[in-house]
Order: sequence, then C-alpha cells, then structure tokens
Amino acid sequence: MQRKNFGHMQCPVARSLERVGEWWSILILRDAVYGLKRFDEFQKSLEIAPNMLTRRLNALVKGGLLKRQRYSDKPPRYEYVLTDRGRDFRPVLLALLAWGNKHFAPEGPSVQLADRETGAIAEPVVVDRISGRPMPGPGFSLVAGPAAGERIRQRLAQAAELASARTPGVLYE
Amino acid sequence: MQRKNFGHMQCPVARSLERVGEWWSILILRDAVYGLKRFDEFQKSLEIAPNMLTRRLNALVKGGLLKRQRYSDKPPRYEYVLTDRGRDFRPVLLALLAWGNKHFAPEGPSVQLADRETGAIAEPVVVDRISGRPMPGPGFSLVAGPAAGERIRQRLAQAAELASARTPGVLYE
Repeated sequence: MQRKNFGHMQCPVARSLERVGEWWSILILRDAVYGLKRFDEFQKSLEIAPNMLTRRLNALVKGGLLKRQRYSDKPPRYEYVLTDRGRDFRPVLLALLAWGNKHFAPEGPSVQLADRETGAIAEPVVVDRISGRPMPGPGFSLVAGPAAGERIRQRLAQAAELASARTPGVLYE
Repeated sequence: MQRKNFGHMQCPVARSLERVGEWWSILILRDAVYGLKRFDEFQKSLEIAPNMLTRRLNALVKGGLLKRQRYSDKPPRYEYVLTDRGRDFRPVLLALLAWGNKHFAPEGPSVQLADRETGAIAEPVVVDRISGRPMPGPGFSLVAGPAAGERIRQRLAQAAELASARTPGVLYE
C-alpha cells in the first residue's frame, strides 16, 4: 500500500493511524473484540484475501495490538488475541459505531449496544473522565503537551489563532 | 488505492470507514477541526501530494463531511468547511488522540486537551450518555438493531456465544 509513513509525526492521531495500519486492521480489531481469534474465522468474516489477512495480522502483532498464541501443538496452530493495547482501541470502535449509526444508517441502526439491566439502547459519547463534561466542548482547549516539538507548537498556535479570528466555534467546540 | 468496498456492509464501523476513505482523510479532518480551510493550508500541514489532496478533499465533500465554499470571486477560490457530519467525527479523533497518547508517546504527550477553567488535563473517555457509565463495560452488550440483516445477526449471535464460552470478558467488557 502506498502511503506516507506517519510514524515520525508527533501528532497522537497520526501515530495512532500509523499503528492501526489501515481499514482492514480496524475491521480485524472489531472482529477480535467480537471474540474471533483464528485465521479462518477472520477470513470468513471479512472475506479478505489470505495473503492480505496474513500481512494485516502480522502488522497488528508487530504493533502490539494482537498477540499470537499457540493453541495446538500437532499440527502447530496459532490464534490471535487482543493485548491491552488492542483492547484500549475499543473506544475508537465505539466512536466509529456511534458516528456510523448516526450518519450512515438511513434504514436504522444494525448494531447497537444495550444496557444489560434496563435494556435501554446505549449512546456512546466522549466525556472528560475528570469533570464528566462532554467533549468536544467549549470548556476545553487543545494545548501542547510536555513532549511537544516545534511543529506541534506551531500548529496549535495557528489553530488557536484561527479559532479566535476566522472560525470561532470550530476548534473542538 | 486498492481496497475492498465496505459500503455494502451493514456494520456501522465498516460504513464509517468507507466514508472517511483513508488515513489522509482522517488527518485532513483533524486539520479542519484545527481550523484549516484552504488547499494550501492543508498541503503545507500534511506535506501531501497535490493530486492526492485533491482526491481526498473531493471524497470528503462527496461523503458529506466537508462542504466547498467560494471565498473569492476573482479569481474563483474555494475553501473546505466541516459539515455537521464532519464535526460529528470529532469524538473519533478524540478517541484516537487518547489512545495515541496512552500507547504511542513514550516521551510524553505532545497534544492534549485542557479544561479552560481549571487548566486540568482532560482525559477523553467513552461513556453511555444515558447512564453515564463507562463504555465498553460489563453492563453493556452488543445487540442487533432494527435494521440488522441476517449477516449481522449471525455475527452478533456468534460473538455472544464466543463471549460466554471461549473468551469471557473480551466482548466489550
């Protein structure tokens, strides 16, 4: 696949994208969250070419999102299990699910999450863990972290300027 | 770019991926959230080939995430502004940011969000808007929505079975 290597970029969004790799990887992670573990299971679910699936699984193992575990000695067979890092990707999947249900399901949602106790359909939203307030929201601003380099600082300064001057309300608000 | 068309899939995650298109599109949306609007601004920020940028912007306009607005008559010039659908993608960016900061910033975070009032660094997490409980969590289960077809129902039934039998705790828990 021809694309730029984003790994050298400091932006955490770019770095995340670098590690997930591409669309197939996200759907493999979705299936892993669904409990699939074996090559054949992923292949059947995704209807993906075997060589492509091998590449994506290897990339996810290398990126530390899946780990390869032997489940049979004769013949030697392996399954792919989410690591902590892979499990921590689940909020991204939930955000994609909520967005897809809102914007790309004209016939109504196909997959939802329900509260086990009440049966109420859950609505995944992002909030600040500390204050509980919805994000993005006017109460939050992007700031440079301790490790921010010159490029990130420039981008954030430019964004703050644009937010106040030309496009009020756009920046995470 | 050679990849499968996910649009016919019912899964809301797959459909979302179909519309966002690819990595560049996510970084363009990030920049649009930062307040960038013009071709030159995106190009400078992303160091992307002009023909690729044109393709990605057109795809985002076609997908309804950006709208093209004329800002100059002579010469005619356009800028790209987030639509409501594009703005609704921001929680996905926040989830990617949180994941990247947690797992791919060994030197410390470069970009964070801060509470404007207290200055406290915010932690974007996903919760259920109705109950406020963290998601994913043991209190929630995946369910078929009203529009779920046979394929989605099979996958959810399989996932429920795997979750109870082979991999307790994996499924959104």
